[in-house]
Amino acid sequence: MSEPLRIALAGLGTVGGGVIRLIEANADLIARRAGRPIVITTVSARNRQKDRGFEVSRYAWEDDMVILGERPDVDVVVELVGGADGPALALARTTFEAGKALVTANKAMIAHHGVELATKAEAAKVALKFEAAVAGGIPVIKGLKEGVAANEIARVYGILNGTCNYILSTMEDTGRDFADVLAEAQAKGYAEADPTFDIDGIDAAHKLSILSSIAFGTAVDFAPVAATGIRRVLAADIAQADALGYYIRLIGMAETEVDAAGNRRLFQRVHPHLVHRDHPLAHVDGATNAVVAEGNFVGRLLFQGAGAGDGPTASAVVADLIDIARGDIGAPFSIPVAELDHAAPADVGHRTGKAYIRFNVADRPGVLAEITAAMRDAGVSIESLIQKGGADNAPVMVSMVTHEGPESAISEALRLLDGSPVLAEPPLVMHILGE
Amino acid sequence: MSEPLRIALAGLGTVGGGVIRLIEANADLIARRAGRPIVITTVSARNRQKDRGFEVSRYAWEDDMVILGERPDVDVVVELVGGADGPALALARTTFEAGKALVTANKAMIAHHGVELATKAEAAKVALKFEAAVAGGIPVIKGLKEGVAANEIARVYGILNGTCNYILSTMEDTGRDFADVLAEAQAKGYAEADPTFDIDGIDAAHKLSILSSIAFGTAVDFAPVAATGIRRVLAADIAQADALGYYIRLIGMAETEVDAAGNRRLFQRVHPHLVHRDHPLAHVDGATNAVVAEGNFVGRLLFQGAGAGDGPTASAVVADLIDIARGDIGAPFSIPVAELDHAAPADVGHRTGKAYIRFNVADRPGVLAEITAAMRDAGVSIESLIQKGGADNAPVMVSMVTHEGPESAISEALRLLDGSPVLAEPPLVMHILGE
Repeated sequence: MSEPLRIALAGLGTVGGGVIRLIEANADLIARRAGRPIVITTVSARNRQKDRGFEVSRYAWEDDMVILGERPDVDVVVELVGGADGPALALARTTFEAGKALVTANKAMIAHHGVELATKAEAAKVALKFEAAVAGGIPVIKGLKEGVAANEIARVYGILNGTCNYILSTMEDTGRDFADVLAEAQAKGYAEADPTFDIDGIDAAHKLSILSSIAFGTAVDFAPVAATGIRRVLAADIAQADALGYYIRLIGMAETEVDAAGNRRLFQRVHPHLVHRDHPLAHVDGATNAVVAEGNFVGRLLFQGAGAGDGPTASAVVADLIDIARGDIGAPFSIPVAELDHAAPADVGHRTGKAYIRFNVADRPGVLAEITAAMRDAGVSIESLIQKGGADNAPVMVSMVTHEGPESAISEALRLLDGSPVLAEPPLVMHILGE
Repeated sequence: MSEPLRIALAGLGTVGGGVIRLIEANADLIARRAGRPIVITTVSARNRQKDRGFEVSRYAWEDDMVILGERPDVDVVVELVGGADGPALALARTTFEAGKALVTANKAMIAHHGVELATKAEAAKVALKFEAAVAGGIPVIKGLKEGVAANEIARVYGILNGTCNYILSTMEDTGRDFADVLAEAQAKGYAEADPTFDIDGIDAAHKLSILSSIAFGTAVDFAPVAATGIRRVLAADIAQADALGYYIRLIGMAETEVDAAGNRRLFQRVHPHLVHRDHPLAHVDGATNAVVAEGNFVGRLLFQGAGAGDGPTASAVVADLIDIARGDIGAPFSIPVAELDHAAPADVGHRTGKAYIRFNVADRPGVLAEITAAMRDAGVSIESLIQKGGADNAPVMVSMVTHEGPESAISEALRLLDGSPVLAEPPLVMHILGE
């Protein structure tokens, strides 16, 4: 058996505790699979004294986490501090300067600084790995980088935020409304006190930008990801979708297309979708994540599992460590960073598809005529429409599913209706994912 | 860019053609991801003259495929001949003797000779890879070897035969009977003219023995895998299962247990199961495969995709080649073959679970009393029971779901009923997979 791989752990929160527990519990098995032991030598966190419910006194303590990579007793730094910038980014940079490898669960940092960090890791000929940054314990980064490496990937999409999926599937099961389920999820610890990153799709957008970079060989580019969350989804939308044969899921979707000038462009969007009940993502419930990749030879592949939590995230972190112990220092984004394509964001106007549109309108004569006239004038063809009456004077819900058509037509219809006194609030559009 | 990785292809059937098409179509992308080009230099098959619908004249032809590995223009041999023994096995042996790597899609050969071949590959310090041998294009071998490498795996199971799943889900959708759907599948080319290996669970058993070896670090051991196929599943069973909230799927299941003497034992079984509709495997339709692995930190992971076909299988073959091009020659079964555990097969008698039992019985008084008395005497507790009358004098179907209990009690009940004149045919038992 070779020399141990020596780990420094920065950040001793939930995931850090999980990594410590995993490395201790499965030490023998890890050593056999990795070909050598993986041992934590040093830890660092903001507060040394904090009671964490697990023992860290057996490891060396480093007050200044940014210098962890410079220690002679460290081969790999595991960054579990979080945040796109700040100490996490400083630590990543010093780690590569010291010629050490970095494993991180930090999706925000990779989404914002992935190209810079991969450049530094490649220059230092060390590994930068971030399996835990996307979809928790699911080995989807490995799946894309290696499992489907022979394929041109047409599309990668999935359920990338467990909190949103928990809320949507609980709304589905119980008929309760968003705010109510969110409050319960917060009380149970499934949702953060400030749930903005999850609920508004930012967390999913971080993960999507990482997935699309690996799938398409493009430089990771978070800024253009259009993200809409689930705040405006009503229990009534879920009931309506169900009646039509769909489940509502927050889907991150990325694909490439070629524009009129022959340049490849990158489409990336996080948006609530109606998912056809025969699509495998329709049955992904609770805090589970799932990613679909469509390759030109492999067809449609699905990876599904726990998207968060200390155990699954630790599983992904230690899988990266085992790869490093085995000698794998492959390019962080599958191909060398200098060869990544800097594809411009795609226009969405010419995209086509089916959509669900829901209006909350005043209950007065002529409302339906005004809405349907706008659809007609914009060239939106309606497949089905349901108007549901509210109680006296309460707004009425009009929901429709369109035929396949350009998204630009829907935008135009909504523009025609914009400011109309019949609308009690802006309409909600959700895209439809077929079988 | 480094030197090309030079491939010899043995076997030019459907999958061989897929590998050629894939390597030609995606050559640039493969070279970027692998860090060097992957080129086919030499091909071999039984009949040089056969019209295959694709061009092989650009490659060197080798009449004696067994010596492919000895050619100086070959770095890796891809074996797509099939069969547990014969030319495939001879080729594998000579390839390792020549110090060359082998990639194969041959589940039968790995199930029967995996330990011998891995020993030879490790001695020669070359790769032996077989991603395509299990679940077609799904990177589940990689998922188990690397993706969940940090975990102790408690259980690995799944839908491992696309033909069976196609037949079962078509029976489900159409209400038609087994023989009818099988005949159609054969006419369409989804099932072999001699479907025995698929229909009787042998193919799934080959794959299961490979998965369990990698998941549990045990020497691959095909002989003890108990395999029952789907020939006896009736449309009426499917309807009955549906009424109870289950779908019928052929499941290969493997887990380890510790016996009374403290030794680890290996349970491996292929059997039709009733799968609860909230379990992700319930919604796997058509020729799709899916594998679930349950790890002690990652929880339940699902890998799903096309289980067969030239494109998906070629995708897995070339993924292995890309790994080799990148320098990965890790142990074929994840840990070195000398360290694999030779676990004895588990007894099934003390296993517990719920089961579905269906009897076809003569329509005469006292039949139900005789069956239920046998259940009582054997200690089988019945959760629900339905008797469905047939037409005049036709056998009557009695189906039941048991409470959780030992499998040995069910065997004992069937033994008590064995030879009873009330049974028109032997009862059919299916195990139940919960949520």
